[in-house]
Amino acid sequence: MRAPLTTLILACGACAQTPYIEAARAWRQSHESAILGELASLIRLPNVASNLGDIRRNAEAIIAMYARRGVTLRELAVPGAPPSLYGELTVPGARRTLIFYAHYDGQPVEPQKWLNGDPWRPVLRAGARTEFALEQPHYNPEWRLYGRSASDDKAPVVAFLAVLDALAARGLKPRSNIKFFLEGEEEAGSPNLEAIVERHKPLLAGDAWLICDGPVHQNRQQQIYFGARGVTGLELTVYGALRELHSGHYGNWAPNPAMMLARLLATITDGEGRVLIDGFYDGIQPLTELERKALAEAPDFDEELKRELGLAAADGSGRKLHELINLPSFNVRGLESVGVGAQARNVVPASATASIDIRLVKGLDHARQVERVIAHLRKQGYHVTADEPTAEERRRHAKIARVVKRGGYNAVRTPMDLPVAQDVLAAAARARGPVVRMPTLGGSVPIYVFERLGAPVIGVPIANHDNNQHSSNENIRLRNLWDGIELYAELMAIE
Amino acid sequence: MRAPLTTLILACGACAQTPYIEAARAWRQSHESAILGELASLIRLPNVASNLGDIRRNAEAIIAMYARRGVTLRELAVPGAPPSLYGELTVPGARRTLIFYAHYDGQPVEPQKWLNGDPWRPVLRAGARTEFALEQPHYNPEWRLYGRSASDDKAPVVAFLAVLDALAARGLKPRSNIKFFLEGEEEAGSPNLEAIVERHKPLLAGDAWLICDGPVHQNRQQQIYFGARGVTGLELTVYGALRELHSGHYGNWAPNPAMMLARLLATITDGEGRVLIDGFYDGIQPLTELERKALAEAPDFDEELKRELGLAAADGSGRKLHELINLPSFNVRGLESVGVGAQARNVVPASATASIDIRLVKGLDHARQVERVIAHLRKQGYHVTADEPTAEERRRHAKIARVVKRGGYNAVRTPMDLPVAQDVLAAAARARGPVVRMPTLGGSVPIYVFERLGAPVIGVPIANHDNNQHSSNENIRLRNLWDGIELYAELMAIE
Repeated sequence: MRAPLTTLILACGACAQTPYIEAARAWRQSHESAILGELASLIRLPNVASNLGDIRRNAEAIIAMYARRGVTLRELAVPGAPPSLYGELTVPGARRTLIFYAHYDGQPVEPQKWLNGDPWRPVLRAGARTEFALEQPHYNPEWRLYGRSASDDKAPVVAFLAVLDALAARGLKPRSNIKFFLEGEEEAGSPNLEAIVERHKPLLAGDAWLICDGPVHQNRQQQIYFGARGVTGLELTVYGALRELHSGHYGNWAPNPAMMLARLLATITDGEGRVLIDGFYDGIQPLTELERKALAEAPDFDEELKRELGLAAADGSGRKLHELINLPSFNVRGLESVGVGAQARNVVPASATASIDIRLVKGLDHARQVERVIAHLRKQGYHVTADEPTAEERRRHAKIARVVKRGGYNAVRTPMDLPVAQDVLAAAARARGPVVRMPTLGGSVPIYVFERLGAPVIGVPIANHDNNQHSSNENIRLRNLWDGIELYAELMAIE
Repeated sequence: MRAPLTTLILACGACAQTPYIEAARAWRQSHESAILGELASLIRLPNVASNLGDIRRNAEAIIAMYARRGVTLRELAVPGAPPSLYGELTVPGARRTLIFYAHYDGQPVEPQKWLNGDPWRPVLRAGARTEFALEQPHYNPEWRLYGRSASDDKAPVVAFLAVLDALAARGLKPRSNIKFFLEGEEEAGSPNLEAIVERHKPLLAGDAWLICDGPVHQNRQQQIYFGARGVTGLELTVYGALRELHSGHYGNWAPNPAMMLARLLATITDGEGRVLIDGFYDGIQPLTELERKALAEAPDFDEELKRELGLAAADGSGRKLHELINLPSFNVRGLESVGVGAQARNVVPASATASIDIRLVKGLDHARQVERVIAHLRKQGYHVTADEPTAEERRRHAKIARVVKRGGYNAVRTPMDLPVAQDVLAAAARARGPVVRMPTLGGSVPIYVFERLGAPVIGVPIANHDNNQHSSNENIRLRNLWDGIELYAELMAIE
């Protein structure tokens, strides 16, 4: 099953050698250490969106980096929120404007789960074990740089810098007007993106948004995606007694909220990931013929993936991953009640919480989908409340579920047959060989905000799929970063 | 529903005024501050059994306290484990030997959940809100002293000291030989108690073990118990992919272990606490007629308790708490997968864990009960392993459950009609008025170890039921401590 990868790598010896790709490759080959050094310096800056001081330090560093390439980034902000950074390269006579989107904030971290105990200390490794000093005379492209946001999504932020350097070194200029839009709170759910974009509509006019977030295909081929799943979520807490109770003195008699939560969650799917909530799949916009064709042509990587992930079976009753991400999902992303292992105590818990994320596809509304979940909880006999239950609620209701909604946004799908879509696909094929076309990314990026501006939105990701994105030990495979620089250089050649 | 309490307190004005009770009361009334000061100084010493350094400091402090009363405590130990402390008061001509059991270690803590953020800083409070300095000219008996082990189980350790002082002040001596046995790792499941007791059998000979652990009845009447539920437990972990996965890219396809765990737990009870595991109730030794009569006469406090605990309904399909603790229980004491709230991330978890405790009643074997649970997991299609699953196991089994057994011990029930049992009941009635006789305590104390020595085991608890035992903000109500001193004084009058 490794054979196709080898074939692909050989095949890409036959990628087109355009001046932009060539410039990018030559620059990268002679500046690998400097490029990695710049990415590492950015990783060293903690970047969880809720810490505005940290975000500020990231923004300042990025502004300085772009300034050194002659690109002035300005802050587009609403008070109290991480700023988005905006800059432009105007090309006289250009007929199109392309807007590159990436984000510089990252997911929260659990330091103790990182190999080196520090998500913000970048480390170069081969196969998660051998560590190398960052400075090397030669870099094996299979090595990876580890650190929070190494791939998601600081890699594109730094790849642009290399592209700017590479083009400048050869006296090349982009053939379209280029705009950069670097968000600072994507991993926090982009709560202020809509307000920022609304406020700066004229500035953000363009012919296509190119979204640099997300991974390439699992078989390492370039993936171009034309949409993204929407996302929403909720925290679901169920309650037992007002306080934790000694499990000996009260076990059998005091309702156990951990068990109640388990029973409640068990009503939600069929054990194969199919959601049993009424209406959960109602209103989905069907795929077009072109989209179905693209899916049918996408490589089937499921068996390889199962091997890689140590899975004897996947959910979905035999359907492929590619198909399944074109459906909404209900995912328990976290459970908590009292504690386990050394943190456990012999008590009947007072409450139990599940953290849920819900992915949406085109046609579903995020607020409505959460209402469907709430209706399901009610159908199971739960009194649903937005706040901690009052004494009165506890007195009246044996089953109480607190639902804290997390907000969210809807899915987007750009038609694949637009001229600019075709141009992006062609540029990607020149830079990266055969391209996988995906109607939607499994992940969510808040591109609905950009879609409203009227320009099509197309995903041009560069990160490896196995980058531990959102988890511990996030990393970028060096080959992906190198390839990404060439891809972005060639996208700047689109006329 | 508060009326019976008042009645009871008035009624106890009619408790017998024996010399021992009178001595205890007089001493306590003039030394409340000193008694509380001694308990507070002991609470200040952290006492989680896994920290041997902390346990040592507790042992040394207790040894010094008893030495000041002329009782030499020696350490009964096995290497690397917290010592049990043993001491004796020999009474020439005594026909019986009574052994008082308590423990000085405490449950693990979550400091952030304590009102003052520090489980080992004792605080005197009225109603969990108003704080008072420890030194007071007068103490309202409804005030409580907060701190880890304030009630469970350092209160009896200090109550004995007051009894020794009180008897000495009046020139009284116990009428039976008295032995003290203070364990140092009860809350860790008493892993070495059996070895310690085996090694010191001759020392521990006696006519009755009086167990000071546990609470009085919820209506604040004195409760005497004649047994305790056994206990065992396990950590149950189910597995998804080898690593956490981005919930967008893989949600719907990657099996979600949090959801698998929920579905698995949901098969275990009927939603009313009744356990559906095959054989879970097989082999239970029925209650005797005397035990059934004692249960029938026990006050029905369930409605009051539901009000106090904010419960609209209890489990058990209408059966009373008193009945239900005479059945085994399956309690989920903790859940964990990734995290919730601010600790949540948009991932499909790689594993999910439930921490389970199982209570046992007379006739059930703890190891066998865990095997019944494991058989149930297998029946649900799970491959059960004791260790982290290997790559080979992951490849072969879609459902893998890791079970880490926690050891445990069986239930004990002493016949209520033994002469020494009748003497203890009579002494308790003299000290505390009408007594609730319980065939078993809901909680577990490792009295099976003492039962094997051949002497009957009887529970003589003093802590308030609402003491937050095992949870945060543990406390002892002063009235319970004062009453406990009188109870223990009168027990020393048993001939």
